[in-house]
Amino acid sequence: MAQLSHLDEQGRARMVDVSEKEITSRIATARGTIRMQPKTLALILSEKIEKGDVFSVARVAGIMAAKKTSELVPMCHPLNITSVKIALTPKHKPARVDIEASVRVSGKTGVEMEAMTAVAVTGLTIYDMCKAVDREMTIGEIRLVEKSGGKSGTFIRKE
Amino acid sequence: MAQLSHLDEQGRARMVDVSEKEITSRIATARGTIRMQPKTLALILSEKIEKGDVFSVARVAGIMAAKKTSELVPMCHPLNITSVKIALTPKHKPARVDIEASVRVSGKTGVEMEAMTAVAVTGLTIYDMCKAVDREMTIGEIRLVEKSGGKSGTFIRKE
Amino acid sequence: MAQLSHLDEQGRARMVDVSEKEITSRIATARGTIRMQPKTLALILSEKIEKGDVFSVARVAGIMAAKKTSELVPMCHPLNITSVKIALTPKHKPARVDIEASVRVSGKTGVEMEAMTAVAVTGLTIYDMCKAVDREMTIGEIRLVEKSGGKSGTFIRKE
Amino acid sequence: MAQLSHLDEQGRARMVDVSEKEITSRIATARGTIRMQPKTLALILSEKIEKGDVFSVARVAGIMAAKKTSELVPMCHPLNITSVKIALTPKHKPARVDIEASVRVSGKTGVEMEAMTAVAVTGLTIYDMCKAVDREMTIGEIRLVEKSGGKSGTFIRKE
Amino acid sequence: MAQLSHLDEQGRARMVDVSEKEITSRIATARGTIRMQPKTLALILSEKIEKGDVFSVARVAGIMAAKKTSELVPMCHPLNITSVKIALTPKHKPARVDIEASVRVSGKTGVEMEAMTAVAVTGLTIYDMCKAVDREMTIGEIRLVEKSGGKSGTFIRKE
Amino acid sequence: MAQLSHLDEQGRARMVDVSEKEITSRIATARGTIRMQPKTLALILSEKIEKGDVFSVARVAGIMAAKKTSELVPMCHPLNITSVKIALTPKHKPARVDIEASVRVSGKTGVEMEAMTAVAVTGLTIYDMCKAVDREMTIGEIRLVEKSGGKSGTFIRKE
Repeated sequence: MAQLSHLDEQGRARMVDVSEKEITSRIATARGTIRMQPKTLALILSEKIEKGDVFSVARVAGIMAAKKTSELVPMCHPLNITSVKIALTPKHKPARVDIEASVRVSGKTGVEMEAMTAVAVTGLTIYDMCKAVDREMTIGEIRLVEKSGGKSGTFIRKE
Repeated sequence: MAQLSHLDEQGRARMVDVSEKEITSRIATARGTIRMQPKTLALILSEKIEKGDVFSVARVAGIMAAKKTSELVPMCHPLNITSVKIALTPKHKPARVDIEASVRVSGKTGVEMEAMTAVAVTGLTIYDMCKAVDREMTIGEIRLVEKSGGKSGTFIRKE
Repeated sequence: MAQLSHLDEQGRARMVDVSEKEITSRIATARGTIRMQPKTLALILSEKIEKGDVFSVARVAGIMAAKKTSELVPMCHPLNITSVKIALTPKHKPARVDIEASVRVSGKTGVEMEAMTAVAVTGLTIYDMCKAVDREMTIGEIRLVEKSGGKSGTFIRKE
Repeated sequence: MAQLSHLDEQGRARMVDVSEKEITSRIATARGTIRMQPKTLALILSEKIEKGDVFSVARVAGIMAAKKTSELVPMCHPLNITSVKIALTPKHKPARVDIEASVRVSGKTGVEMEAMTAVAVTGLTIYDMCKAVDREMTIGEIRLVEKSGGKSGTFIRKE
Repeated sequence: MAQLSHLDEQGRARMVDVSEKEITSRIATARGTIRMQPKTLALILSEKIEKGDVFSVARVAGIMAAKKTSELVPMCHPLNITSVKIALTPKHKPARVDIEASVRVSGKTGVEMEAMTAVAVTGLTIYDMCKAVDREMTIGEIRLVEKSGGKSGTFIRKE
Repeated sequence: MAQLSHLDEQGRARMVDVSEKEITSRIATARGTIRMQPKTLALILSEKIEKGDVFSVARVAGIMAAKKTSELVPMCHPLNITSVKIALTPKHKPARVDIEASVRVSGKTGVEMEAMTAVAVTGLTIYDMCKAVDREMTIGEIRLVEKSGGKSGTFIRKE
């Protein structure tokens, strides 16, 4: 029967014991989107502001957040991640920025939460930097799109 | 003309100067949703596990994340927040958990980002605790629904 | 002659060099107790409040504190711990809650401090959540009860 | 009837709302003890090591921990503490070090948890620095001895 | 006679008590320089790389570090800073980047350390991003150039 | 052609992927200096204050900062460092304190930034503890003097 692995037999939260797991190369990729008004997107992309600066700050925030995952998500294991990449893609109709984060580690447990956290904080940072002109931006569709490594093997979400 | 206040005249990122703003009572409320398979929701709500434990851990994570906002979102001001409340509401058709975070402060700047961050990390924690049974859960619709206090006054999103 | 290993030959503090130590599986268990008035314990255990919520928050705090040990105790090495478990046992005569934390790692140095820190912060959290009704609660008997792994081998405290 | 203020009417954890409280000058003092073998105490106090270095590191750890309290204890409010003092007093028969921490703030809520946390982490640091020679040291009697300021006024524990 | 205010009458470290100080508007500005090979500076300024990205990441790092000052410098008081600005100026003969950080707060103590810390971490980040091509870059001349506010009044360093 | 490895082909910041690098023993040593007035140095070294306490606090700060490097420098990888040593050497003519930090790790990437960060924060802490008597102290010459391990091999700066 399916079980929530973070809860023990009495339903109490615990950090899942991964001591006996093998160290393997693990990769995870997550995606999300921040929707906004077309004029907000235009302002971000405008020539009048140093090109890409909102994106630059947001990428830094996402990378640093990936490193903070185990401080934020209570049952996450601390991990020495070996790579984080954040890709930001502006899209029109509807106006939005697509966010993708890929994280790698050589460890006993996966980096799905690191990738998801990086996407969320990248989106929050874009929101913060643009909220003076657009309070109704919405961050959504934060999801795991791919993972590999570890006993459970490869997962690819059908998009 | 509209401006991104976190960027100076040359488009360089900076922490907006709020030194001259008045200290007022400020409140912000944000919402979001984590969609999942019906059986995942059933497992969370099941009598077989200590009632509410996933929710309990997620609420703690959201509250602690609100306090960490200025460490995560680069241009956010550190604030001594005076209240955080997280409400989690399971919903069916489609199966999901609605997340609402309300944050208060008496300060020179608002707590929109604290409320948004609390919602995001609450959702990430639910994802983490249930991902062993449902990798396709999706966190979405993270949005500001209300804020009051400060010079810009009250904002209520039309839902 | 016995030496305090965190002090070098001139008595200056340093982080002990564990570079040449072997990576082995290491476990440590610590215990402590928080004494309180019988009515405080009754309130925690009461049916009127969501069962176990004080305990649930305290367990989360203890688990997260174990991960923060090297930020708190200056000479501790950062470690990627692989498991943390917190057990809380209410006891009567005298009224108290017994706290036990077990931590595991595969690393070059032990996790005694992580287990001790988890016990301390779990106790502090119970104190915080109940202090409005009982300011005289006392946290005590924080001690290492068992450790294994590493060159110094197994230690079991006579209880 | 007495209530656990960190739990709402449904018993769910929340950060208590202190928004409407007055800003007053608040002080809290906590104490604790770390018991050890006489030879461990002698080693700490020995002329052969730079005088007071274990104590110096432990004091720094306690002061820094007071500042981290709201990151450790989930429902604690972040506060800009204005003073921390740590006093360490070696005692014989039985061999031990008495720890006292006093914390001040001008704020909407008290600093009891900051003082208690400072005592606990000071004790943990002494343990860490001496554990190579004495694994059975025990940290105990962590308690609030005095607080003043705020609506609930002055509390002095009978010692 | 002059005294080191962070040491009490027995020379023990403490966080200086600022409880009774007035809340005033305080500003501090610090400067520093990172010297490098001309070709390293050229690479940073090159059209081939997204303009200003090294500078953009370094500015974000400096702003975030200002917020972390009280976690890094043991006796610093936590402060809710209200503004941070980082200016980076490339200079030739000798090739270098001049760094200036200005920090503001409305508080009981000054922000000199926040400005100094922001300069140091901005420089460290430039070093990190360019060290693959120039290991001999040197960070220097980190100094306070101006402060105002508080009982000690205005200080302007003769440059 | 030389490249800034923290920037990808489009010049966007990323955490360099070290997943495929070998785990080797790595050491880095950095140095810096804090210059001050002769009377400030005399005060630090004075018999009237507990010997070495400024140095003791500064050493603790430097060691703890080394552990925080990946939280401060955005593109740094988190690492489980195995050793940190800080040496402080008072010098006259001109009056100053020379700072040296050595860091070790067994990992996929080097610890240059950890050593540099430890030096910077040690200097900042000395500044903080003495600034009441000497605001014009200057922290400088922060530089890498030696590193070994990893594919790029040994580097020794000509001093």
